[in-house]
Amino acid sequence: MATLTRAISRFPVPALEELPEDIRARILKVQEKSGFIPNVFLVLARRPDEFRAFFAYHDALMETTEKTEKTEKPGGLSKAEREMIVVATSAINQCQYCVVAHGAILRIRAKDPLVADDVAVNYRKADITPRQKAMLDFAMKVALEAYAVDEQEFATLRQHGFTDEDAWDIAAIAAFFGMSNRIANVTTTRANDEFYTMGR
Amino acid sequence: MATLTRAISRFPVPALEELPEDIRARILKVQEKSGFIPNVFLVLARRPDEFRAFFAYHDALMETTEKTEKTEKPGGLSKAEREMIVVATSAINQCQYCVVAHGAILRIRAKDPLVADDVAVNYRKADITPRQKAMLDFAMKVALEAYAVDEQEFATLRQHGFTDEDAWDIAAIAAFFGMSNRIANVTTTRANDEFYTMGR
Amino acid sequence: MATLTRAISRFPVPALEELPEDIRARILKVQEKSGFIPNVFLVLARRPDEFRAFFAYHDALMETTEKTEKTEKPGGLSKAEREMIVVATSAINQCQYCVVAHGAILRIRAKDPLVADDVAVNYRKADITPRQKAMLDFAMKVALEAYAVDEQEFATLRQHGFTDEDAWDIAAIAAFFGMSNRIANVTTTRANDEFYTMGR
Amino acid sequence: MATLTRAISRFPVPALEELPEDIRARILKVQEKSGFIPNVFLVLARRPDEFRAFFAYHDALMETTEKTEKTEKPGGLSKAEREMIVVATSAINQCQYCVVAHGAILRIRAKDPLVADDVAVNYRKADITPRQKAMLDFAMKVALEAYAVDEQEFATLRQHGFTDEDAWDIAAIAAFFGMSNRIANVTTTRANDEFYTMGR
Amino acid sequence: MATLTRAISRFPVPALEELPEDIRARILKVQEKSGFIPNVFLVLARRPDEFRAFFAYHDALMETTEKTEKTEKPGGLSKAEREMIVVATSAINQCQYCVVAHGAILRIRAKDPLVADDVAVNYRKADITPRQKAMLDFAMKVALEAYAVDEQEFATLRQHGFTDEDAWDIAAIAAFFGMSNRIANVTTTRANDEFYTMGR
Amino acid sequence: MATLTRAISRFPVPALEELPEDIRARILKVQEKSGFIPNVFLVLARRPDEFRAFFAYHDALMETTEKTEKTEKPGGLSKAEREMIVVATSAINQCQYCVVAHGAILRIRAKDPLVADDVAVNYRKADITPRQKAMLDFAMKVALEAYAVDEQEFATLRQHGFTDEDAWDIAAIAAFFGMSNRIANVTTTRANDEFYTMGR
Repeated sequence: MATLTRAISRFPVPALEELPEDIRARILKVQEKSGFIPNVFLVLARRPDEFRAFFAYHDALMETTEKTEKTEKPGGLSKAEREMIVVATSAINQCQYCVVAHGAILRIRAKDPLVADDVAVNYRKADITPRQKAMLDFAMKVALEAYAVDEQEFATLRQHGFTDEDAWDIAAIAAFFGMSNRIANVTTTRANDEFYTMGR
Repeated sequence: MATLTRAISRFPVPALEELPEDIRARILKVQEKSGFIPNVFLVLARRPDEFRAFFAYHDALMETTEKTEKTEKPGGLSKAEREMIVVATSAINQCQYCVVAHGAILRIRAKDPLVADDVAVNYRKADITPRQKAMLDFAMKVALEAYAVDEQEFATLRQHGFTDEDAWDIAAIAAFFGMSNRIANVTTTRANDEFYTMGR
Repeated sequence: MATLTRAISRFPVPALEELPEDIRARILKVQEKSGFIPNVFLVLARRPDEFRAFFAYHDALMETTEKTEKTEKPGGLSKAEREMIVVATSAINQCQYCVVAHGAILRIRAKDPLVADDVAVNYRKADITPRQKAMLDFAMKVALEAYAVDEQEFATLRQHGFTDEDAWDIAAIAAFFGMSNRIANVTTTRANDEFYTMGR
Repeated sequence: MATLTRAISRFPVPALEELPEDIRARILKVQEKSGFIPNVFLVLARRPDEFRAFFAYHDALMETTEKTEKTEKPGGLSKAEREMIVVATSAINQCQYCVVAHGAILRIRAKDPLVADDVAVNYRKADITPRQKAMLDFAMKVALEAYAVDEQEFATLRQHGFTDEDAWDIAAIAAFFGMSNRIANVTTTRANDEFYTMGR
Repeated sequence: MATLTRAISRFPVPALEELPEDIRARILKVQEKSGFIPNVFLVLARRPDEFRAFFAYHDALMETTEKTEKTEKPGGLSKAEREMIVVATSAINQCQYCVVAHGAILRIRAKDPLVADDVAVNYRKADITPRQKAMLDFAMKVALEAYAVDEQEFATLRQHGFTDEDAWDIAAIAAFFGMSNRIANVTTTRANDEFYTMGR
Repeated sequence: MATLTRAISRFPVPALEELPEDIRARILKVQEKSGFIPNVFLVLARRPDEFRAFFAYHDALMETTEKTEKTEKPGGLSKAEREMIVVATSAINQCQYCVVAHGAILRIRAKDPLVADDVAVNYRKADITPRQKAMLDFAMKVALEAYAVDEQEFATLRQHGFTDEDAWDIAAIAAFFGMSNRIANVTTTRANDEFYTMGR
């Protein structure tokens, strides 16, 4: 199996030199930080406007430490918990890139080498708290049957200490990565080899 | 039934005066153009960063006339066809806001008072071309089982004259509005009354 | 899109002159009342026995005002509510004819120009009463998994003031239009243009 | 288990004496012919108008021998084949009354003591002809996803010698018994003990 | 239909003489007891190791009378109840061999000629006890979505008097016959004619 | 999260000393070979007869190297391919133990540190051969809708060089681990920590 070449995507990927300055800069920055360029950056870069919007949305939902006092997000979800939502959503949507790449990030943020695989396969059986299971139950409802979400789901979340703002966060993350999963599957975006072992 | 009050959303909606300048400007512009403020603008405005990213993404996928010669998108899809994808996707995801609001836009862009209802209920029986049905078949596959999209779907699209860039567009629109549908359902964002009759 | 001809059905439709007297009379009567002949009458007319049984069944379930004192039906459901069941059932079954035609009737009977689109897309988010949502929850259970209906459903209905006779009505309407939806989809029966704007 | 009493239905059943004359007559006729009154007659009899429409529809679809030369139905389906459709449809809808009662009728009409159980459990593995399997494939599509029936299904049926009229018959029978299955499940109509062994 | 030959399986079946001694002995023993050789013995016999493991597993789950005092199984489930689980599981998996063969065994063990057909079509409407319905609810959850089984299911079972050991039994029987159903469907193993009438 | 204790199973696990000699011997042998006792051995050991049958079946399907010349299995599937079937089946059934434990074995047998995660998330996008994808397509059909397997599936397998014996193997492995997945989920059997990193 090792002899098969591993294309980044079924779509052609642009050379870094061809990219608009702001996009190249962002890519180089992530490369410097991670040591490699996650493939999703290269795949989306051929559509600069979509690239910019995608990562702006991503950061708005996933980056919480840079927020100032008057934050949009109440901060009820830790960064690790946000990644849990990504992994569980991406697994139910069968997205190879997102499960592998965000599984790595989850392991690092949770400082737990096992949790990502457990959440990916069946979060109901993972070593996470009842609160986190309720969080993922809600994320799954958003991913699979958002049309049926009603006040009962918000009430259940409140019993576990989640505010309505947290509910928005959970739903928005599950929805955003539901989009990401679909794009990655259609473009056959492959996870970088580095992700498979990070944080184990 | 007319006596029930019709909330914009289950989440509180910010006052225009409280909003960041750029967001208020965008909202006032759409109000000037449409004669009213579509509710999705007000619902998302309480999360300014998400608002900006959402509409940047929306415009990148849906606004094609402003593109210059060296466009990202080959322009294989008309604006009406892009709205068809939105309506079919939103219907299968049972999103009231998106079906009603984008149904109105579809009627106007297609100059066809019937097509939106037909596409919403069952596009397979709508008076659209075989090429458009193939486009919507692909959008439905993206919406419902993107994990199973493979080269066969691209081949079918090519038989109907769609390029791989068109395939990206169809997939990205179905994926983006899949996100939008989930957020609108969780926030119970209601369509403005004006949309129900526009373009009929 | 406007240039495509809009066939009534994929099956040939009989001329009025060829029809048995009673069937022609019924059709002319509805034409006189509505100003046009709803296509379902023409499509079913080529099978006179099925036509007669279909409309007899329809009237038994949907026409309540003509009932005498010793009615079969307790009258717990208003005519508008009966149409709500038709629209919700037909939407989940993706039947273009029934959603459009009965959506029109629902608008008229409910004197509400918005309710039909809302119920068609996602009744859970429609401006209807909790009692009506319970009614439609039951109708959906009948449409999608009638085998699992048990005493719990009847108990829930009773909490909302519905009798067992009402339950029978809801179930029978959902079941009858489930049949109608299937026949209309197989015959590709198209809704008349007039229905799209009636009652808006 | 034998000690449990076996109610005909969760709804009260009328006494024969209370019934309108035409309905009582029909019931007595079937009792004379069969030696017992099939429970569905008693359950539906409490709604005389629905009873009349139901059996008129049933007879229009299932009774072919009484047809004169200028029949509505081309007669492409034998009576046994019509019962096969009923059994396969009722099994997928998990309707105890219809599978047991029409299983008995199928055994008798097909003069085959095994075919009813086989068709009920998995018609794909039953000892029936490829033509009959194609007939049941179409019936299943009507029962489960009629919205997706298109010209391809009609073409497949034609390859097996079925006309478009036969397609209508298959679809109408699957649709009618889909209604019947839902009503029987909601009313918990039980099959008479006699049906279990008839024709074995 | 009677003219079609009825193959035991789509795979060749070995002659008794060719079989290993222990397997032939087991087959002859069941033939002596039943008067015929159930086809599943012949189909599996061509894979002796799988045959031995299959029937060892079967006996461990289904044969309780031979157990000594210090049994593995607490005996909370009667033999008839174990067969109910088999029939309900096999019906939902649409396995002709298992529904017909174990339907016969269920009729005999329950001394009830009707229960097998009822459980096969829709156990929720069968004349069985609430405890038995809870047992089959759990078996269906195991068959269809075992990943979601959690402490709530065990609690429900306890309310009906089932121990955790009983829960294991129910789950293991549903899981084992889920395997058996898949193998029988892939090999198109047909039920012997004798089973259709046994115990009626 | 690291502070939560990680129970082997929701069912009590027997002490090695209490076990029958043959079972203890088998467990000690696997411990010697692997360096630890895979939890499934301990969970199943409390039911000795089921333990014996389970592992006898497992070995008959998965162990091919010990086979003599006159093997039951034609050997068309490599050991790594057999593990691929296990991982893909266990992932679709959401079984944490089996995906993690057999993922480790797959990595080792395929000498490929990435393939297990890829096959678990979405084998359609994994770096495996078209022949292996066809093998897993068939395994998925067996896992999810074995009732619909017919000659077309065998024909497709033959086009990829698989014999009917290979088809039996694929089906039997998917069916056996479908059973295993259900039992592991109901007993909440957790994968040993060692498995998460083996072979990476």
